[in-house]
Amino acid sequence: MKSDKISEFTTNRLSVYLRCLNKLAAAGETSISSESFALRFDLNSAQIRKDLANFGDFGVRGLGYPIDTLRENLIKILGLDRERHVGIIGAGRLGMALTDYYGLRRANFTVSALFDADPGKIGKKIGQVVILDIKDFSAAVKKYNIDVAVIAVPSSAAQIALQMVKQSGIKAVLNFAPVPLKSGPDIKVNSIDLTTSLENLSYFLAKSDDAKEG
Amino acid sequence: MKSDKISEFTTNRLSVYLRCLNKLAAAGETSISSESFALRFDLNSAQIRKDLANFGDFGVRGLGYPIDTLRENLIKILGLDRERHVGIIGAGRLGMALTDYYGLRRANFTVSALFDADPGKIGKKIGQVVILDIKDFSAAVKKYNIDVAVIAVPSSAAQIALQMVKQSGIKAVLNFAPVPLKSGPDIKVNSIDLTTSLENLSYFLAKSDDAKEG
Repeated sequence: MKSDKISEFTTNRLSVYLRCLNKLAAAGETSISSESFALRFDLNSAQIRKDLANFGDFGVRGLGYPIDTLRENLIKILGLDRERHVGIIGAGRLGMALTDYYGLRRANFTVSALFDADPGKIGKKIGQVVILDIKDFSAAVKKYNIDVAVIAVPSSAAQIALQMVKQSGIKAVLNFAPVPLKSGPDIKVNSIDLTTSLENLSYFLAKSDDAKEG
Repeated sequence: MKSDKISEFTTNRLSVYLRCLNKLAAAGETSISSESFALRFDLNSAQIRKDLANFGDFGVRGLGYPIDTLRENLIKILGLDRERHVGIIGAGRLGMALTDYYGLRRANFTVSALFDADPGKIGKKIGQVVILDIKDFSAAVKKYNIDVAVIAVPSSAAQIALQMVKQSGIKAVLNFAPVPLKSGPDIKVNSIDLTTSLENLSYFLAKSDDAKEG
C-alpha cells in the first residue's frame, strides 16, 4: 500500500467515489467498469484507476469493479468502519444544530458532548447529549474517548479553543469559525469555509447584474 | 476586462486575497509587493499577479499593490458592495443557526426570511427574522427581493426545495443538505460539503491508528 503519499485531493475523491458507489448499489447494480463509472458521474476514468490502485487491485479483468467489495474497501480505507467520538465546543445555535446533524452520524461520528462557558447552558441536554463546562474539556475527552473536536465558537474565541483541543491530545478538528486557524503538523484542522462559498455566489450575482446593465 | 472567462478557482482565490488584505490593512500596512504578499500568506506570487491582471492593472511599479485600493476593487469585483437578501428554507436548528451567522452578515448577506412547512413554527421570529409558510415562498421572494436561497432542509426534501427556488427565479443557492443536487445552467448551487470534510478527517485518524498498531 502506497497510502503514505496519499494527498488530500485523493482522499476527497475517494469520498466522492464512495457516494457514487452507494447510489449504484442502491440501484441494484453489482459491477461497473472505470469508464462507465466515469461517464455516469462525470469523473475521469484514468484518475479513478490511479486513485484506487494506490490501495490495491480492486478491478476484475473484463468485469470492472465489483461494487460491494469496492464499497467495503473504501469504507475501510476512509476509516468509516470505526465509530468516532465528537466533542462540540460552543453550544450556540450552530453547535446545537450540529449535535443532531445527519451528515455526522452517516460518517459514523457520534456526538458525545457539547462544551460551553455559559453557566445557564451547562448541565442542559440537546437530545441525549449533555452540555459540559468547557473547564472540564480535557477530563471529558478522556472519559468519552473524544477523538474529533468541532469548533463552533465565535471567531474571536476559535484560536483559544484550538489551543485547548491540542493540549487535550485530539488530532482531528472541524472548524466552523470563519477565521483561518494556526494549527501545526500533528493536528488536522478542516475548516468549513462558508465565506469563500458566499463570496463566490456574490461574484456570480454581480456578474449577472453587470450583464443585465451592460 | 476578461472576467467572462474567470473560473471558480480564480474567484475563490480572490476571496482569499481579500481576507489577507483585510489583515494587512488592520495591521496598518499600506502597500505590498506580490512577492511579499505570497511569502506572508503562503501563496504563489505569479498566480496572484495573473489573477489580479484579469480585472485591471492594480500594481504600482516599485511600490507593489496599494492595499486600500486593491481591497476596494476586490470588494467591488466580488459584488460585496451590494446587499444581498437571503431566504433560508428550513427553520430547523441549522436554519436558525444560519439566521444570525456572522459569516453571512460579513459578506453583506442579510437574512430576510425563514421558510418552513411546520404550522407550529410559522409566524414565529428568530431575532428580527420571521418564519413564513413555505407555500408563500414565491410571493415572499418578490416582496423581500430575495436573491439568494439557503437550503437547510433534510436531504429527502432538498431537491424539491431547489425546484421551488428555480421556479421563483432565484439564481444563487447555498445548499447544506448532504446530497448532490441536480441544478442546471442558469442557477449557481454551492454545496457546503461536510461529508467530504468529515471523511477526510476519518481517513487521517484511521491512518494514525494504523501507524500506532503497525
